[in-house]
Amino acid sequence: MSIITVVGAGMMGTAISFPASDNGNEIRLVGTPLDRHIIEHARKTDEHLTLKRKIPDGFSYFQIEQLDEALKDADLLVSGVSSFGVDWFLEEILSVIPETLPVLMVTKGMQDTEDGGLIPYPLLYAQKLDRKLSLYAVGGPCTSYELTDHDPTQVCFCGGDMETLRKIKSMFETDYYHVSLSTDIVGVECAVAMKNAYALAVTLAVGLSQRTEGVDGKQHYNSQAALFGQSIREMRKLLALVGGGDDNLVYGAGDLYVTIFGGRTRYIGTLLGRGLSFEEAMAELEGVTLESIVIATRTARAVRVLIERGKVRSEDFPLLLHVDDIINHKKAVDIPWSSFEVETYL
Amino acid sequence: MSIITVVGAGMMGTAISFPASDNGNEIRLVGTPLDRHIIEHARKTDEHLTLKRKIPDGFSYFQIEQLDEALKDADLLVSGVSSFGVDWFLEEILSVIPETLPVLMVTKGMQDTEDGGLIPYPLLYAQKLDRKLSLYAVGGPCTSYELTDHDPTQVCFCGGDMETLRKIKSMFETDYYHVSLSTDIVGVECAVAMKNAYALAVTLAVGLSQRTEGVDGKQHYNSQAALFGQSIREMRKLLALVGGGDDNLVYGAGDLYVTIFGGRTRYIGTLLGRGLSFEEAMAELEGVTLESIVIATRTARAVRVLIERGKVRSEDFPLLLHVDDIINHKKAVDIPWSSFEVETYL
Repeated sequence: MSIITVVGAGMMGTAISFPASDNGNEIRLVGTPLDRHIIEHARKTDEHLTLKRKIPDGFSYFQIEQLDEALKDADLLVSGVSSFGVDWFLEEILSVIPETLPVLMVTKGMQDTEDGGLIPYPLLYAQKLDRKLSLYAVGGPCTSYELTDHDPTQVCFCGGDMETLRKIKSMFETDYYHVSLSTDIVGVECAVAMKNAYALAVTLAVGLSQRTEGVDGKQHYNSQAALFGQSIREMRKLLALVGGGDDNLVYGAGDLYVTIFGGRTRYIGTLLGRGLSFEEAMAELEGVTLESIVIATRTARAVRVLIERGKVRSEDFPLLLHVDDIINHKKAVDIPWSSFEVETYL
Repeated sequence: MSIITVVGAGMMGTAISFPASDNGNEIRLVGTPLDRHIIEHARKTDEHLTLKRKIPDGFSYFQIEQLDEALKDADLLVSGVSSFGVDWFLEEILSVIPETLPVLMVTKGMQDTEDGGLIPYPLLYAQKLDRKLSLYAVGGPCTSYELTDHDPTQVCFCGGDMETLRKIKSMFETDYYHVSLSTDIVGVECAVAMKNAYALAVTLAVGLSQRTEGVDGKQHYNSQAALFGQSIREMRKLLALVGGGDDNLVYGAGDLYVTIFGGRTRYIGTLLGRGLSFEEAMAELEGVTLESIVIATRTARAVRVLIERGKVRSEDFPLLLHVDDIINHKKAVDIPWSSFEVETYL
């Protein structure tokens, strides 16, 4: 049995602890300053406030002031913060934990650099820290609700050391939570981060068909499939640009698939496709900043830098650039279908 | 204006003629012996019997006895037969047409060989014919209903000569029908044929979630995405095996996507996932032989030959082999989730 301390009591940090708890591990769920009500609610009801699921026995709950207590004798620290919490996590948590404590992050995303690079969080943290930590991350298609409901799920844990990865895997692997392992951190993390722009792109077609069929009308799949195929093409090129292995497309494509079918990214893409402006679409979320929009913007920004520097041709990323035009340059949806046509010689 | 003669008045042969007709070309739709009622119905009503769509002006209709008349001065022959009609098409049509008449086939599929090869129809025809014809084929995600309804569609025409491909493309390309071109016949055709086994595989998860959620309950996407990702992995390996270019995954993934969301393959996969035996599931189709089942079987048969000969490892294709076990070896659905786990080194 291991002791797993989870900082960030949001949906994904909590959900990934379910299989670990099913394996008999002790889970210490620590709320960030934004999670106080989640911790209080869990203490009272043994239910997670936003997941709306009963939390298994074997969980205990901590507010952030009790961090030291929660970290005592811990074997693994899980970061459950979203990409909006990475600076806080760096300053408040990673600066104080023992260097011997491995960290597994569910935070998805990447940061673009001035020279057109894209850096996933484990490597970004490593750059910013003046201490050497053991940083691991989770990629691959997984919605938190379905994980807590034991839907068969396949993800990838990535990080620098395969032996440690195997050890971490042994804490989480169950008959419904399946874990591949990879030392290709850039490949795994960028593959799954890239899906943000492309999930928005594919769901534009959902909205486009609603223009003719009505909101509850039948969906068209030729156009969705065309955008899905083009997404695969551009994601492969992006993977090559960041130096990630081509097989990571498996995680990127799976994550793209799951994102197309659920959540707020689909909702926004559909509204845009239906004809709403980006401002009108975002107004429907009532002030919530969407992680996928932020990451899509970063991805496009990096590609635009590379285009300016002559390292990439704009015609290689017509779909990504169109998504960026829509969300950041007030352009209307006008899918550049013809630019997806290629001539290929054997 | 060109004259396009279409032999095979089924849904896809007719649908692909819509954009060509919109471009002002003359379409001569010729029924096979199985299509008599479709031709008669079209003559009377200008409507297609199974597509249930009004056929544009500029179409004329022929029964098979009028083939010579329909071929007079034709610039292109389109084969609209399904893969069950390829022998008939070879003997009755390809043996009699002028060698100068290029042929574009909508027939999807491939044939396995005794030594574990997979050969697409244009190359199979070329092997069997003792005359030299100009054979081209269409691959990529396209349902006939949606094409006739002008949903934006992106396909690939493939064949040996790029100049001829461009000429054929100019007959079909419209603002809703977009055409890439490729001389990689094996790559394009095998990529889109492979999707048959994998569309069945992914939709097993639809049925699996119905076991707990009920037939009209909410769908689970983690498991579908896991199977989608594994499908991408195995399709890439299959593409490499047949010698097709890796970029053809774009067409394979798009075609997989569209097949998951429509038609009888999804229906059968869902029934199997729900717990029906293969015989019980097929009984629901009342004697219809499903093209996707035939092609999935051929794909698996080729891979099994290669495994026997030590050229391929069975652990590289766990999902394909499980699908084959279900449809050809009376096995129950029991997705080998753990076998999708890999360890990857940077």
